Amino acid sequence: MATVPSVSYSITVRLEVVDGRAVSDLTHAVEHAGGAVTALDVTPTGHERLRIDVTCAARDTEHAKALVAALRAIEGVEVHKVSDRTFLMHLGGKIEMKSKVPLRNRDELSMAYTPGVARVSSAIAANPEDARRLTVKRNSVAVVTDGSAVLGLGNIGPYAALPVMEGKAALLKRFAGIDAWPICLDTQDTEEIIRTVQVLAPGFGGINLEDISAPRCFEVERRLRELLDIPVFHDDQHGTAIVVLAALTNALRVVKKELAHVRITMAGAGAAGTAILKLLLDAGAKQVVVCDYLGAVHKGRSDLDENLGWIAENTNQDGYSGDLAGAVAGADVFIGVSAPNILTGEAAATMAEDSIIFALANPDPEIDPDVAHRHAAVVATGRSDYPNQINNVLVFPGVFRGLLDAQSRTVNQEMLLAAARALAEVVTDDERGPNYIIPSVFHADVASAVAAAVREAALAGDR
Amino acid sequence: MATVPSVSYSITVRLEVVDGRAVSDLTHAVEHAGGAVTALDVTPTGHERLRIDVTCAARDTEHAKALVAALRAIEGVEVHKVSDRTFLMHLGGKIEMKSKVPLRNRDELSMAYTPGVARVSSAIAANPEDARRLTVKRNSVAVVTDGSAVLGLGNIGPYAALPVMEGKAALLKRFAGIDAWPICLDTQDTEEIIRTVQVLAPGFGGINLEDISAPRCFEVERRLRELLDIPVFHDDQHGTAIVVLAALTNALRVVKKELAHVRITMAGAGAAGTAILKLLLDAGAKQVVVCDYLGAVHKGRSDLDENLGWIAENTNQDGYSGDLAGAVAGADVFIGVSAPNILTGEAAATMAEDSIIFALANPDPEIDPDVAHRHAAVVATGRSDYPNQINNVLVFPGVFRGLLDAQSRTVNQEMLLAAARALAEVVTDDERGPNYIIPSVFHADVASAVAAAVREAALAGDR
Repeated sequence: MATVPSVSYSITVRLEVVDGRAVSDLTHAVEHAGGAVTALDVTPTGHERLRIDVTCAARDTEHAKALVAALRAIEGVEVHKVSDRTFLMHLGGKIEMKSKVPLRNRDELSMAYTPGVARVSSAIAANPEDARRLTVKRNSVAVVTDGSAVLGLGNIGPYAALPVMEGKAALLKRFAGIDAWPICLDTQDTEEIIRTVQVLAPGFGGINLEDISAPRCFEVERRLRELLDIPVFHDDQHGTAIVVLAALTNALRVVKKELAHVRITMAGAGAAGTAILKLLLDAGAKQVVVCDYLGAVHKGRSDLDENLGWIAENTNQDGYSGDLAGAVAGADVFIGVSAPNILTGEAAATMAEDSIIFALANPDPEIDPDVAHRHAAVVATGRSDYPNQINNVLVFPGVFRGLLDAQSRTVNQEMLLAAARALAEVVTDDERGPNYIIPSVFHADVASAVAAAVREAALAGDR
Repeated sequence: MATVPSVSYSITVRLEVVDGRAVSDLTHAVEHAGGAVTALDVTPTGHERLRIDVTCAARDTEHAKALVAALRAIEGVEVHKVSDRTFLMHLGGKIEMKSKVPLRNRDELSMAYTPGVARVSSAIAANPEDARRLTVKRNSVAVVTDGSAVLGLGNIGPYAALPVMEGKAALLKRFAGIDAWPICLDTQDTEEIIRTVQVLAPGFGGINLEDISAPRCFEVERRLRELLDIPVFHDDQHGTAIVVLAALTNALRVVKKELAHVRITMAGAGAAGTAILKLLLDAGAKQVVVCDYLGAVHKGRSDLDENLGWIAENTNQDGYSGDLAGAVAGADVFIGVSAPNILTGEAAATMAEDSIIFALANPDPEIDPDVAHRHAAVVATGRSDYPNQINNVLVFPGVFRGLLDAQSRTVNQEMLLAAARALAEVVTDDERGPNYIIPSVFHADVASAVAAAVREAALAGDR
């Protein structure tokens, strides 16, 4: 898969250069080495010398080093310092706590803290429900991980997971005004995770489980939903499921097919795959075959655990027992949440007319998007450098906004379906097309539309 | 004890009044009923009527109702709405989470979140210590309670404790720029508290234990200090101890006595009392007698638990076994962290010349401050309406600032002693006097002076 320079691998190189040296030599050197110059700051430092900060995007760490080497190789150029812009952005953390109340003098202190706060505490002691009105619980979400399945990095533990959870918290604020705080757990024992989250829950209005590996994540979520009176949402499962269903809804509109009538082949029976499957079935899908690395999941397999057993019971009515390539033959829809490059162009070519391919493995999809486009009418990936990016950021901020606004005690499939419908509807009939089945994460209406739908579904459930 | 109107019991009463009615009738009515008018907003509403918002301070909830009744009793005055300013301030919580990084476009998203964040996570996975540099752990403190001993309200549970913990977090930010988050635990089991805090610790640079009842708080703190590589500080114990030692240091300077030579009588052997005792002994105090509700703690008592046993071993060398009144006879210093009105004026009169009385029970001290002043050279209380307020806000922000700046893995008695010395030194020789032994919480130098001393002590300990 070709990769292009990305600002996420962006460096700033501080150079000292003999004055008279053409600045264009620097930009040429970077570009010749395959980098992209995004900024240039020149400051004279006296003695006929210039200080130049060159900021450029690289493909990866090795490429960044090559760009520095290319600059160093120019005569009259001295490299002083190389800063990594991404690391600079993370320095000291990406989030902070702020007081919403002024604490300028003794009077304000006496209302926000002792003795005034005692009356507020007494009111909540008399009526614990008031905590949802008089405290940060009104608007707070714990972003909880055990660091066992972080991004594509695997089991890197709670410390290394923290930057991701901070990022998640920052996104919840940016897109939905939510006050989230990262909680990185120093245990990977299922019972301990459940008990810890239960014990720390009182201060939060919702729990976002994140990057907890399957199958433990199923148990953790199910049990916490039973135990807690606040909604528990595993984004890797349900956030993904909602955005996939929304995108598929619009893709099917583009090719004029009905969810109830299409044949769907899925690759991946992990957390995301299972959640997608369940939401598709609840939305009305009837013909689904799920494959894992051993081939199609069917009742005759001897390795079925609880999760695979459920899949076998609820899909693959014909008992297909072959491999993925056979399963996609004649299928209308392929949805992959599995591994890179497992779907060949030849297999894709055997799909039905006007097929739909969602190849969501990150960073390398199940099939090269360019190849997929040769065979399918609509293609979506998890990548930002192709159209139709399936991105959870489209979903989780609005979902939690709606849950908090409804003071919901739970989250259920009806709310997830409502979120998916609302997200699909953000794309208007005029806008919808093969390259626009899902809006951009920066589309101004996304979070509010999802929030309103979830809020309404939550309040309807309460009635 | 007489109490005066306080803004912490402040209400805003919206009135509709016939125009021509003198506004002074309203303020007179409030003042006649014992309230204090702090603001008045008048808006004409047409039809020869005025809308007037009267904001006034009351003594307590009953008194606030009496003020409203006094206003209602005036002819031509209609009471529309009564708002409680303290509750209004707490509505929706007092703290929020903010992102420190801009998330305006895809490039910024790709550095703060995926894919860029993966490189930061990988760096921390390779070197977990980098979490103290590249995440919010650099500057974050968990404010942890089980809600078992909140203010003077007792065991009101985690929900009712939340406004207090939010207030604490807000103070940590206001006075020391720290990012704290409240964690209210839905358990009061010692082992579960310990395990939960241990499990959630990775994302924090320090733990502030708060309002956990004795004796469980001793065990919780001791065990967590052994288990964690970040400092664990129980403010009710050590915050109080530091500010008492600082105030006593200056009080002794005022009366020209030496800590090593004075006789000290303490009332209260709970969490605060024990911590004060230990810090006084570490600072050089030699003659201390501690009394609890059964009288002096001495080796002959049959009810000694682990904590009281330690006190009996390390104080009261003469084996005094009488009551508090006998223990204060001839004493130079009385320090009470116990219950209201347990020290009579007669007993205070038997103390040594130039005695010092710290009556810290809240809201009602061990002895009426006015009575204490008749017998002692220096008097301090926990109250803001008398000079020399012993207030933990003087201590905990600076202590955590110093610990975080030193990236300290622990907190020990040397650091607490350094904090007390630094706090005492904020009061200059010229300023020091019977009514100024401790600075105001709004004194600009307090937090930075305490932080610098703690940081230095922590770094010295590392060497």
